[in-house]
Amino acid sequence: MAFSTISILGVGLLGGSIGLAAKAAGINCRIKGYGHRASTVQRALEIGAIDEGTSDPKDAVRSADLVVLCTPVGVFPGLLQELGESLSPGAVVTDVGSTKRSVVRLAEAGLPKLTHFVGSHPMAGSERRGVEYARADLFQNAMCILTPTERTHAASLQAVGEFWQQLGMRLTTLDPDTHDRLLADVSHLPHAVAAALVWMQEETALGLTGKGFLDTTRVAGGDGGLWRDIFLDNRDHVLASIGRLKQTLTHLEGLMERQDGQTLAQWLDAAAARREDLVRRKVQELES
Amino acid sequence: MAFSTISILGVGLLGGSIGLAAKAAGINCRIKGYGHRASTVQRALEIGAIDEGTSDPKDAVRSADLVVLCTPVGVFPGLLQELGESLSPGAVVTDVGSTKRSVVRLAEAGLPKLTHFVGSHPMAGSERRGVEYARADLFQNAMCILTPTERTHAASLQAVGEFWQQLGMRLTTLDPDTHDRLLADVSHLPHAVAAALVWMQEETALGLTGKGFLDTTRVAGGDGGLWRDIFLDNRDHVLASIGRLKQTLTHLEGLMERQDGQTLAQWLDAAAARREDLVRRKVQELES
Repeated sequence: MAFSTISILGVGLLGGSIGLAAKAAGINCRIKGYGHRASTVQRALEIGAIDEGTSDPKDAVRSADLVVLCTPVGVFPGLLQELGESLSPGAVVTDVGSTKRSVVRLAEAGLPKLTHFVGSHPMAGSERRGVEYARADLFQNAMCILTPTERTHAASLQAVGEFWQQLGMRLTTLDPDTHDRLLADVSHLPHAVAAALVWMQEETALGLTGKGFLDTTRVAGGDGGLWRDIFLDNRDHVLASIGRLKQTLTHLEGLMERQDGQTLAQWLDAAAARREDLVRRKVQELES
Repeated sequence: MAFSTISILGVGLLGGSIGLAAKAAGINCRIKGYGHRASTVQRALEIGAIDEGTSDPKDAVRSADLVVLCTPVGVFPGLLQELGESLSPGAVVTDVGSTKRSVVRLAEAGLPKLTHFVGSHPMAGSERRGVEYARADLFQNAMCILTPTERTHAASLQAVGEFWQQLGMRLTTLDPDTHDRLLADVSHLPHAVAAALVWMQEETALGLTGKGFLDTTRVAGGDGGLWRDIFLDNRDHVLASIGRLKQTLTHLEGLMERQDGQTLAQWLDAAAARREDLVRRKVQELES
């Protein structure tokens, strides 16, 4: 299954990069883009990320055989409701959302019977936002998580996977709930912690920070609205992740209170070794 | 006051770099180095970080007019006790420890009357350890915190400050307790959190980590023994810092539980803006 008309809903950093990467990969298709702001659509046209632009999402999906939702997660419900009757029969719909349970549930319940939804989470991007940061190589070597359910159309799942692979991505598959639980641990929690570490500092303390503090808190630099959507949409798992971090810190507090230096050093060394091992694996992935 | 014989106790990353930086700055002095291991002393001699090496700290401080304690913080008490009678009258003693209350208290109580202690915390280094990573430019543009008390000898304070400035450092002054409290917030807590974030992950989750997770946890890569010393020595302040982080996370949990999207987005945006502002100031510091 090859797509001949791709509709990108939301031509920001991710949407714009999908257009650029599809062109760079030589995918022979027409790319239609929807943007909330006319200036964004204009900019996406100028950099060649899309062939046609519109500020009406219904226009953007008409005659498309692949529709990619690239707006913030909080906009998905309204968008899915609005699109329904404009989608072509047989159209495949996917998304780039950082949370998967809600969009999969909404799409499977709300989209027309003859369309096929496949949840995707291409793990690329940056704390920057906007089509001006779009790059054709944004997805190269990054991982895309597909989140099929028992209702997912097999041929559509395969076609969406091949599309991400054409953009340079490696694929993995998780069910939507496992995805949301694990991403709460490795992505949403680090963001929450980084923001909290910035928040709690006295002004004088900030003057003493070095490169370590800036690295630890880098992910706190993202857009508040985008992350609000993620935190609220995935709040049960994020709350559980925060709870587990607090428990881990309570364990550390106990070691310090009991002045158990031997266990404390082992605990710290084990964390360092586990991270070293992770870095080694990531380097191998990039080299393979 | 210019120093003619400098004794570096502990010729690892920091001690070795002090030797290299003093030579590079053209300071006209003889540098004696003590190392626990003969191989480390040999390596420090080979790279020209020291002019003379010994595995006996008493030897290393004889006739020195500046002594710099560069061992892990946990070794300071034994070292200070051992050195006492070998120090020259008038010798200035300083250190590079990441915590300051205990070393200042021990040195002021235990060193001979005719010697002068000045607490220093040159904020340079890396998660790497060992003289093989020593660099002449390690201190360039970094900050050194001096921690004088009412008992500190004014001329010695000034001489130690000038020494760090000659190595390229900017100076600031804090009392030992304020130092330990603020460093718990901006340095020791981030290390504890980074280690906890690594510890709590399931193996499957680690496979999904990206650059953000590696940045957030980079500081967890340090040596467990060194950090054990810091956590135990500064445990009251580190425990307070962990407590304040937990409170901040509890506030965030409340926003999520109440689904207060507006306050949540503001809270996240404020953290992002505060960090942006910090990055701007750090860039200005480096350019000035």
